[in-house]
Amino acid sequence: MTAADGRVPVDVTPARSTDAIFAARRAHLGPSLSLSYRTPLHIVRGEGAYLFGADGRSYLDCVNNVAHVGHAHPRVVEAGVAQMRLLNTNTRYLHEHVVQYAERLTALLPDHLEVCYFTNSGSEANELALRLARAATGRPDVATVDVAYHGNTQRLIEISPYKFNGPGGAGRPDDVHVVPLPDRYRGPHRGEGPGVSAAYLADADLVLDTSVGSGRPAGAVIAEAIPSVAGQIVPPDGWLAGLFEAARRVGAVAIADEVQVGFGRVGIATWAFAAQGATPDIVTMGKPIGNGHPLGAVVTTRAIAGAFANGMEYFNTFGGNPVSAAIGLAVLDVIADEDLQDHARVTGELLLDGLRAVARHHAPIGDVRGQGLFVGVELVRDRDTREPDASLASELVNRAAERGVLLSTDGPDHNVIKIKPPLVFSAADADRLVETVDVVLTEIAAG
Amino acid sequence: MTAADGRVPVDVTPARSTDAIFAARRAHLGPSLSLSYRTPLHIVRGEGAYLFGADGRSYLDCVNNVAHVGHAHPRVVEAGVAQMRLLNTNTRYLHEHVVQYAERLTALLPDHLEVCYFTNSGSEANELALRLARAATGRPDVATVDVAYHGNTQRLIEISPYKFNGPGGAGRPDDVHVVPLPDRYRGPHRGEGPGVSAAYLADADLVLDTSVGSGRPAGAVIAEAIPSVAGQIVPPDGWLAGLFEAARRVGAVAIADEVQVGFGRVGIATWAFAAQGATPDIVTMGKPIGNGHPLGAVVTTRAIAGAFANGMEYFNTFGGNPVSAAIGLAVLDVIADEDLQDHARVTGELLLDGLRAVARHHAPIGDVRGQGLFVGVELVRDRDTREPDASLASELVNRAAERGVLLSTDGPDHNVIKIKPPLVFSAADADRLVETVDVVLTEIAAG
Repeated sequence: MTAADGRVPVDVTPARSTDAIFAARRAHLGPSLSLSYRTPLHIVRGEGAYLFGADGRSYLDCVNNVAHVGHAHPRVVEAGVAQMRLLNTNTRYLHEHVVQYAERLTALLPDHLEVCYFTNSGSEANELALRLARAATGRPDVATVDVAYHGNTQRLIEISPYKFNGPGGAGRPDDVHVVPLPDRYRGPHRGEGPGVSAAYLADADLVLDTSVGSGRPAGAVIAEAIPSVAGQIVPPDGWLAGLFEAARRVGAVAIADEVQVGFGRVGIATWAFAAQGATPDIVTMGKPIGNGHPLGAVVTTRAIAGAFANGMEYFNTFGGNPVSAAIGLAVLDVIADEDLQDHARVTGELLLDGLRAVARHHAPIGDVRGQGLFVGVELVRDRDTREPDASLASELVNRAAERGVLLSTDGPDHNVIKIKPPLVFSAADADRLVETVDVVLTEIAAG
Repeated sequence: MTAADGRVPVDVTPARSTDAIFAARRAHLGPSLSLSYRTPLHIVRGEGAYLFGADGRSYLDCVNNVAHVGHAHPRVVEAGVAQMRLLNTNTRYLHEHVVQYAERLTALLPDHLEVCYFTNSGSEANELALRLARAATGRPDVATVDVAYHGNTQRLIEISPYKFNGPGGAGRPDDVHVVPLPDRYRGPHRGEGPGVSAAYLADADLVLDTSVGSGRPAGAVIAEAIPSVAGQIVPPDGWLAGLFEAARRVGAVAIADEVQVGFGRVGIATWAFAAQGATPDIVTMGKPIGNGHPLGAVVTTRAIAGAFANGMEYFNTFGGNPVSAAIGLAVLDVIADEDLQDHARVTGELLLDGLRAVARHHAPIGDVRGQGLFVGVELVRDRDTREPDASLASELVNRAAERGVLLSTDGPDHNVIKIKPPLVFSAADADRLVETVDVVLTEIAAG
């Protein structure tokens, strides 16, 4: 077997068996970390949109938006390799990679977003965004969208309803204000009409005004343009732009969390907030930014950066190092040179069309929604009551994995099939995914 | 020029000038990030304990404890390269590297520390440690050592007196309790007598008992075995062990922050807490763990991990990925195979002896202290009053850099020269550092 690029693959035979790895994992990894799929997968290699198991099987990866330009993309890997062999040190010295990367990132953003900070993850980026907003406004309170997840630190759990209202959660803290999720399928305001966005925005205004009236005004409003763990929720037109305007109306800073959805995934724009005509004061980035390398970024205005520069240093030991910056630059190059943003647009349309066609034959598919290669399929027990069907979602995901197609579930009811593949996902891959969903749902329906 | 290992060096000529990089940095990087040295260095390559500038000059790196086994160590780099070319994905799949790494790390720790979590930085590790302690005790409050720094997130700034009492700081939060720094040179209890440790521990007991009595009992006590930004403070014998016992006496969890001092740096043990006979319930790791690659870890007991597994997942997108684990494993291999821990012990003794000899001729050196290759030199205006001399420290650091020797300052008074080189720092390197300190202090004294 020779890889597509002519490289001779190295031996990837693991030193121990899948069972032995499973046992060692139970012995020494934290029990708060679960494995995907009923029969966990032992993956040893990745290439493009495919993962390869220790058993020799291949899997179409429809869910890993981190491997943005494709697993083990040679250009990204070799950019990292070359820099690792030369130098990997901190940003207390001058180095051209980090400044070039800052220039390239800001060039992709609206002009007013011109100052960059580099971190090692989306969690670190969102943490820093909250600190920036607090410095700029003097207000510690945060407004967040219901069912959102923004990261794994203490403060980010506190602003993530998906976590604080979920298992083990401690409930909403007093300094966090929750704006309703603009879910047109299941939320209080439904459908495609022009009044839906206004209705959700009126709810948001009420929450923000109440925060001000109660003497706990929100200093930041944070939102994903397409709320992800909430179930791949595509908001009604104008919602995100209106939410960010409402934030500024009450003196808060608007933070666009692009950790899941940025870097061309939505197809019609580099950033999902831009696709919705919204104007943030701070943008945070993670997951796809380094194609798997630990990297995150925050970009903001000169005014906010100036307020944060109050005498306290912000130093991030690894953030913005020459290796991370070289990898980040290579990801931007590949997106541009392989035209992946437009590819996401075209392939995403094919995928949505295919899934909607399948939905016509399968009553349990209550909704198909998405933008570019960020798609959700909501499964229900009854199309009228819209009762969520988490067990069907789980069964679909597990049977698809057995057929070599990797999906996952999300949403507060765990009934939404989450689809967010590497952007190199082809039209044929989309066809295969659609066909697999069709076949598995038919098989399950047959009992 | 050919490198020591026979590799032909690649062209490292930057695409733009040092001045152009400096200008771009001002335009697009956050102003809260300062550069080292009066004349910032433009570094393009690293090897062993040496950095190389764009101007062709070489610099002896006496301060970067991140490049633990030496800049661009070929074994560490090639371990990362091989894995990057194969696969870099998350820990929702089985992979042997992450479990092997967890086995190797726990084998280096006391038996009761057996469950690992992997992160992308020391900040993420300390954040998680606080969440673990809170889950285990139900108490949000934290006791911290004065002048400590534990990371850059909101909560970590709140438990870092170095930050909250420093420029731009908001002061001590109500839920944070500050134990005195056991500084035998400048603190309230001084000298080498056996009563010094007991006196600091009595102070700590009072703080912890007061936290209990006030209804805000500390759920965690966090400490570095050798407080770093506080000025490379080597505590009196028994202090850390006593502090951790005091933590448990009041029902708190003891966290050893080994981000600066772990992985053999102190010479006589792998962990600085172990060198002091202390027993933590949680250990956090960062900086040197990946030789520059963004990596961190938390290791704790099965009981604490069990309390944390309350139904809420802890997922870290990049943490524990196969590339990070491969790099972490290679760092452990190099430390063992090159006997770097014992090398740190031997070279550290040479360095301390040399610096103490220099101190006999230079009145401004008030104190020389350290363990292994973690050393501090405190500069004063007067040995009797011990008045800190920050301007001399700054002058020494800048003139040493001009002579190709990289140092930095720390401590609340910015008068402590911080020395923590890559562990491959040789006896000849130690001699050069000692001689440089001697020559520069002589030169400054001469006016």
